[in-house]
Amino acid sequence: MCEANVYLTARDSQIETLFLEAVDQIIPEGLEIWRLISIFGEQKILAGHIKSMNLVNHRIIFESSGA
Amino acid sequence: MCEANVYLTARDSQIETLFLEAVDQIIPEGLEIWRLISIFGEQKILAGHIKSMNLVNHRIIFESSGA
Repeated sequence: MCEANVYLTARDSQIETLFLEAVDQIIPEGLEIWRLISIFGEQKILAGHIKSMNLVNHRIIFESSGA
Repeated sequence: MCEANVYLTARDSQIETLFLEAVDQIIPEGLEIWRLISIFGEQKILAGHIKSMNLVNHRIIFESSGA
């Protein structure tokens, strides 16, 4: 399966926190608002923008919209 | 391998054109500017925003910034 783990980091931070694992679908729902759906059907809403994606390593990093 | 194929569509169009296959990395380079790097090392720059991602199906759709 080719899902990815989505991590969230604050601006200017090196700390990456796991936000949702085994993500299958990522759908934009507005300005810097994203719906994430895992292969298990779990859904979470994320506020931020994509910082990097590395699909072979199953890693997608979002930077939080907050401070 | 868990790369994805990146497709590009125009606004309000249902036609999806393959932009780059076997994409590993996607890195933002500015407002609606993205660097795509395939598992073969091929790089392309895309202007647009993410419309949908379906990782299990290896499909990432961008909507072009142009008309």
